[in-house]
Amino acid sequence: MARWFGSGNLSVMTVLPNTPRAVAPDVLRARLDRASTEASSRGVDALLITPSPDFAYLLGYRPPELERLTCLVVPAGGVPRLVAPRLEAPLARHQLGELAGDVEVIAWDETDDPYALVHGLLASDARRVGVQDQMWARFVLRLRAVLDPVELVVASPAMAALRRTKDADEVDRLRAAGAAADRAMAAITGERLSGRSEAEVSRRIKELLLEAGHQTADFAIVGSGPNSASPHHDPGERVIGEDDAIVLDIGGMLDGYASDTTRTAFVGDPPADFRALHEVLHEAQLAACAAVRPGVPAEEIDRAARAVITEAGYGEQFIHRTGHGIGMETHEEPYIVSGNADPLQVGEAFSVEPGIYVEGRWGARIEDIVVVTAEGGERLNRTDRRLYIVE
Amino acid sequence: MARWFGSGNLSVMTVLPNTPRAVAPDVLRARLDRASTEASSRGVDALLITPSPDFAYLLGYRPPELERLTCLVVPAGGVPRLVAPRLEAPLARHQLGELAGDVEVIAWDETDDPYALVHGLLASDARRVGVQDQMWARFVLRLRAVLDPVELVVASPAMAALRRTKDADEVDRLRAAGAAADRAMAAITGERLSGRSEAEVSRRIKELLLEAGHQTADFAIVGSGPNSASPHHDPGERVIGEDDAIVLDIGGMLDGYASDTTRTAFVGDPPADFRALHEVLHEAQLAACAAVRPGVPAEEIDRAARAVITEAGYGEQFIHRTGHGIGMETHEEPYIVSGNADPLQVGEAFSVEPGIYVEGRWGARIEDIVVVTAEGGERLNRTDRRLYIVE
Repeated sequence: MARWFGSGNLSVMTVLPNTPRAVAPDVLRARLDRASTEASSRGVDALLITPSPDFAYLLGYRPPELERLTCLVVPAGGVPRLVAPRLEAPLARHQLGELAGDVEVIAWDETDDPYALVHGLLASDARRVGVQDQMWARFVLRLRAVLDPVELVVASPAMAALRRTKDADEVDRLRAAGAAADRAMAAITGERLSGRSEAEVSRRIKELLLEAGHQTADFAIVGSGPNSASPHHDPGERVIGEDDAIVLDIGGMLDGYASDTTRTAFVGDPPADFRALHEVLHEAQLAACAAVRPGVPAEEIDRAARAVITEAGYGEQFIHRTGHGIGMETHEEPYIVSGNADPLQVGEAFSVEPGIYVEGRWGARIEDIVVVTAEGGERLNRTDRRLYIVE
Repeated sequence: MARWFGSGNLSVMTVLPNTPRAVAPDVLRARLDRASTEASSRGVDALLITPSPDFAYLLGYRPPELERLTCLVVPAGGVPRLVAPRLEAPLARHQLGELAGDVEVIAWDETDDPYALVHGLLASDARRVGVQDQMWARFVLRLRAVLDPVELVVASPAMAALRRTKDADEVDRLRAAGAAADRAMAAITGERLSGRSEAEVSRRIKELLLEAGHQTADFAIVGSGPNSASPHHDPGERVIGEDDAIVLDIGGMLDGYASDTTRTAFVGDPPADFRALHEVLHEAQLAACAAVRPGVPAEEIDRAARAVITEAGYGEQFIHRTGHGIGMETHEEPYIVSGNADPLQVGEAFSVEPGIYVEGRWGARIEDIVVVTAEGGERLNRTDRRLYIVE
């Protein structure tokens, strides 16, 4: 039912229950209020939030994403209500806990029309409704038909306004997730990697992520040899060997917040040209991290990394943006990409991850999560950014 | 990045690499052809398929679901093309393998407009386009604006026509997944459950699912005592004790196909009224399974279960439909629900899972996966459907 994979790590039998730390009801109430205000200030009459990180941000839990409509209705300046299939109403009331007094649960039966139910909860003069960014097309198209002529827009401008700057508790959670990922990275770069398949090393990293305290190990990219030039490589049966570059990009969730860090390793003595490539990358990543401070346009961070890489002649091989925001999702706003002139704000958290990829041969990437502080940026990943020499 | 959680079970270090069995390129080619034909016969000029089970069904792999548009374009009667962000083009070509000759990969750069790219791949006289059912709202609304006045409809009628009847290889995979879930169910119902929290038992079930051969353990509902009356209960810190009813609803993925089975247990000697309730449920489930055969309307299976339960006076406590299709997704077509008059076809697979829930007190559910055969139905779950008495 739920896609979420709770746990199942090596040490699961010996450790204490490892469930995410809850968010206080007062914090959730304040978020619901702000969501309503942010919608209103954007001329959006209501937000329709289906199960997603936005839903979890507002209500403190995440129901399964299934074909039956579950939808939080947040009217601009009104009272939020939760439409849920009858069989999930007990789950909703249980999970809402104290908040159940603030958010009425409206249950629908298998043969009811939940879209009409949502329609009935909107103000009769509603003209514009924001739908959660990841809402399924099947729901979007049905709502569109039922709500016609109401205009549907994405809820993200309002929701991102809330979520992109993290409060102190959220930064704590990101910090803990970053530290956990660092422990896993330190462990894996200390192991012998040659003679093992990418898939084997990837599974080992997931174990290490869980052992380090993550509740879920979400990804462990291991791109070796020519595969290190494929940024989102899916680890396979290729066996790591001598003279392979290896890109290790790993992360999971801890107390509802994501980790994401990348380091590059090399089996044996790296040739001069790979050392040079990594040195340029290292400089570029340092320059981008150093550029972080409040008020700087997001694209300037991208430019800082790209300038170093382009200057050294690798511009064509840096085939992606410099970073993405991170929080309850691994990828969220703000995006560190050319064209995004939004000034950075205190509390924003994002990856700084330039890469250089020579197709068919090798690649490298260095990634840290950085939080914007009043003074500049705080790096949440602290492992050495050097090229790791492994066996 | 990817939400998919590969593995990380207790025995991960000692077992062989456990990656899903691939689908032959010829099978994928035939599916792509049929998708095009099914679209055409429904007056749909193209299907737009973002990463999802539909995508995996057609192309044999599933890229991460992220904010950058990845979209398979299947024109009615034309050649399929895959639009992908440049950084994932190597992944796409690698995963397509032999199929890369049939499906051209069109890469877009971070500052390109991928929606315009998709637009350019549609016939200039396209009027109606089917979008994958789970496509994110952010993509749907952008496509709608760019493709205007093209009408957007859901791709599911075409895709479900392909996916709802399983071929022999798919039934084999479902059978293997069912047998694996049965091993996990047999093991957990043989353990002492009292004195353990729901969350602890849930984690144990996930281990058992992985040990039994699943590649992922997706859910393990453990609803004890009054929580057994919450069909989608999220296992928590409640400690199981004497006189608790316990609903165990478990499943995962094996070689790309889902398992899903439910049994009910009781700690100690069940009172006569719970025994009676379970007996009625057992009869209802048997009656529904017995009603399965080609040509019978899907809703008749629901009616068969509901008649027994209503007759015994529990009608109001059976608060959900009788079942859902299963395949590459845990929930898919056909739905076994009142109002679905579609006649069952050979090769369809679905759950038969009536339940009776007495709020605040207890509940019970029995669930098997059944495949429609020429003669009737084949049950893929074979553990005893009795009430399990546990310590």
